[in-house]
Amino acid sequence: MPPAVSLSEIVAFVGGDYRGPDVEVTGVAPLADAGETQISFLSNPKYAPQLASTRAAAVLVSASLEGDSPRWIRVENPYAAMARTVARFFDRKPMPRGLSPRAEIASSARLGRGVAVGAFTSIGEHVVLGDNVVIFPNVTIGDGVTIGDGTIVYPQVSIYYGCAIGKRCIVHSGVVIGSDGYGFAQEGGRHHKIPQVGIVRIEDDVEIGAGSTIDRAALGETVIGEGTKIDNLVQIAHNVRIGKHCLLVAQVGIAGSTELGDHVVVAGQSGFSGHLKIGNRVQVAAKSAVLADVADDMKVMGAPAVPFREFARREAHLRKLGKKP
Amino acid sequence: MPPAVSLSEIVAFVGGDYRGPDVEVTGVAPLADAGETQISFLSNPKYAPQLASTRAAAVLVSASLEGDSPRWIRVENPYAAMARTVARFFDRKPMPRGLSPRAEIASSARLGRGVAVGAFTSIGEHVVLGDNVVIFPNVTIGDGVTIGDGTIVYPQVSIYYGCAIGKRCIVHSGVVIGSDGYGFAQEGGRHHKIPQVGIVRIEDDVEIGAGSTIDRAALGETVIGEGTKIDNLVQIAHNVRIGKHCLLVAQVGIAGSTELGDHVVVAGQSGFSGHLKIGNRVQVAAKSAVLADVADDMKVMGAPAVPFREFARREAHLRKLGKKP
Amino acid sequence: MPPAVSLSEIVAFVGGDYRGPDVEVTGVAPLADAGETQISFLSNPKYAPQLASTRAAAVLVSASLEGDSPRWIRVENPYAAMARTVARFFDRKPMPRGLSPRAEIASSARLGRGVAVGAFTSIGEHVVLGDNVVIFPNVTIGDGVTIGDGTIVYPQVSIYYGCAIGKRCIVHSGVVIGSDGYGFAQEGGRHHKIPQVGIVRIEDDVEIGAGSTIDRAALGETVIGEGTKIDNLVQIAHNVRIGKHCLLVAQVGIAGSTELGDHVVVAGQSGFSGHLKIGNRVQVAAKSAVLADVADDMKVMGAPAVPFREFARREAHLRKLGKKP
Repeated sequence: MPPAVSLSEIVAFVGGDYRGPDVEVTGVAPLADAGETQISFLSNPKYAPQLASTRAAAVLVSASLEGDSPRWIRVENPYAAMARTVARFFDRKPMPRGLSPRAEIASSARLGRGVAVGAFTSIGEHVVLGDNVVIFPNVTIGDGVTIGDGTIVYPQVSIYYGCAIGKRCIVHSGVVIGSDGYGFAQEGGRHHKIPQVGIVRIEDDVEIGAGSTIDRAALGETVIGEGTKIDNLVQIAHNVRIGKHCLLVAQVGIAGSTELGDHVVVAGQSGFSGHLKIGNRVQVAAKSAVLADVADDMKVMGAPAVPFREFARREAHLRKLGKKP
Repeated sequence: MPPAVSLSEIVAFVGGDYRGPDVEVTGVAPLADAGETQISFLSNPKYAPQLASTRAAAVLVSASLEGDSPRWIRVENPYAAMARTVARFFDRKPMPRGLSPRAEIASSARLGRGVAVGAFTSIGEHVVLGDNVVIFPNVTIGDGVTIGDGTIVYPQVSIYYGCAIGKRCIVHSGVVIGSDGYGFAQEGGRHHKIPQVGIVRIEDDVEIGAGSTIDRAALGETVIGEGTKIDNLVQIAHNVRIGKHCLLVAQVGIAGSTELGDHVVVAGQSGFSGHLKIGNRVQVAAKSAVLADVADDMKVMGAPAVPFREFARREAHLRKLGKKP
Repeated sequence: MPPAVSLSEIVAFVGGDYRGPDVEVTGVAPLADAGETQISFLSNPKYAPQLASTRAAAVLVSASLEGDSPRWIRVENPYAAMARTVARFFDRKPMPRGLSPRAEIASSARLGRGVAVGAFTSIGEHVVLGDNVVIFPNVTIGDGVTIGDGTIVYPQVSIYYGCAIGKRCIVHSGVVIGSDGYGFAQEGGRHHKIPQVGIVRIEDDVEIGAGSTIDRAALGETVIGEGTKIDNLVQIAHNVRIGKHCLLVAQVGIAGSTELGDHVVVAGQSGFSGHLKIGNRVQVAAKSAVLADVADDMKVMGAPAVPFREFARREAHLRKLGKKP
């Protein structure tokens, strides 16, 4: 149970306007679920009717909200204020501390200050872990891997030899980084393995969701750009290059050597064929199949993917066909 | 090798009618594969010709099947009788027993009677394991997790802190429960993490297939209802609520805050966008993209998903277009 | 850092024609990236302009390439020569050696010569590992599993009891082999588990990509044929039979009891419904949904999948509809 925090401290932290009593609160919850020792927030107007019935001690609301209540904390952006409040006061996730005597850490590994390594984690030869890196139990880190300051690696992750992870990354359970790319040469009806001797390089502030897989390059690097956030069960093939600050939603797949620009957003279950060039700020709707290059700022949809407007016209026609017997 | 069981014991157990000799049998196999010490079954009529050629010692057949043979065991439902026979006599899967000295179990964890914990499994602080819980090797269970009586957790599973698993659940290898939901607030072209401080709550009698991922709620709970069965590589996002007795086939993805009713069936590789409300007994065909609410008892199909009949009409028109040059 | 190799040794190994100086080289890289101590290759003609600007010490080129340079090594097939050179001289991936004292190996397990087992790996009762099998750290191998000579199992793999893996296979991190098939019988609105007591049998020279899942048969076997290569996050259901020398690209899913012939190629994110029969040499385009049997040598595409030509005609019509307002 997190210790209680006084409302006045929260109000000061979010820079809010509040006239009610200063009580102790223990957490944040949606309006409908909040108890008397929790605060809540109103961001989406459709939940406004719940303002009257919520049991919350106080509610973060927009500075411009009509009406008044002694329970309201007025702020510019209630959603952001809620997120910051949770992060500052109530995000008490337990973390391993120190080096478990049940971990196996190669004597040639170099560990920064404040590193934590959980039980049954194997750290290979010549691994370099930056300051305050946290490795949970049951992780396998291959020889020569480098991990930057402040990165967190959750349980059941495998990072193959030689890969490089940036600072402040978050790698969730089940992620595999640096497995062999899918490269074969056919000869006489058999598939012969092309050695995959490149690496994966992940820049700073990247988050990778549970169960996602990122293959090492055949030669050179597979790259995930700074600040990019990858959801669960995403597949990234060898020699792919993802730009900075992209969003790849769950179950997306990107085939070999395809390059995405910066600020690209790909919705769930979409796929890209190989060797494509996708521009900056491109948006791909859910379950699309991108089979050709896409220019900067385009929005595409469908399988095969076409511009949004073209897809909408196709759908309008098909909808008519579906109505007619 | 499982020990032999007498046919008379099996016949009595399934309540069958059998006039042949009482021999010892060692297992159950399909008609084409069964050896002389195994029994078989006829459920799908297309396999009836194999009745004559099978080497099986005896065959579970329908009470109403035409013809006769001393090898036939007549029952109401041969498929169900086969399943029950396998479960009762021949499902001898090996299980860990007792607490491995190579496991790490926090001293504050509370273990029920008959609990088994395999080697290299890490059990966090204040974890509660009910009676007869079985945890295989190489599992990581975070602080404060609770697991109900009789639940089985296979190797290489990660359950994050604070999540709650019901009774008699089965969690297959590679499953991740309680990883952070995919929530970010964009500001100045960068994606800032929204803390994910809710949990995952899994009710009784749920089975979760290999490699599936279930994210913890941002606030509150992600819920999997009683008796729901999830196949492999399924993705369930934060704050999703799945009803009771649903079936989610492999590689399905459900985006954040979407709610499914009870007895919903979703075929493989289908996806749902976020914040939807899907009624009871809804059926979704394979590879569909559900982008809007669906009322009780509807059957939908396609990407975007439309009612079955409408999809069939569209397909009929497209088939004609595909035939014409 | 791999030790340097003399160019003359590489030239002799690939059977090339080279007239330049004999220098020491340290690796292979693409033309644009290669440094002065690396060699490169020209396979795709679109990169020919980079021949002039590359810093590579030498370049593998086609015997028939126009022009001349003292840096060129002329060979029949530059791509194959590059792959063989990397494999022979520069593929120095680190491997565990010997039996880690931190592994748990059942006393009834039988290990061949030259077997390596990493830390925190659990090897069950009666497991048989052939000669030179390599098992990385944090792997779980259930009772009675057999693994053939020369097979490599990467970290975080789970192989359930009784499964059989062939020789020279490669199993990447996060793979699950032998989890229960998804089989339930509905009765009174509840789903009752059908016991899954068959196994998975994987023939020789199979490679399985990171995070893929292969379920055990209900009765009998799920089979992956010799030489088949499976990419990442692929789902193979119970009683599926995959032929020899197939390619299954990432995120493909195959439902229960479907059979694929030999030399079948399935592109990424495609799915098959259950109980289908897919012929030899069939090709399935990306993101297709195969819902019916497919004859030998057919090429299919779409959801539902139709022959390539028919799909192309549909697309041409739809493209027109999309252009019209």
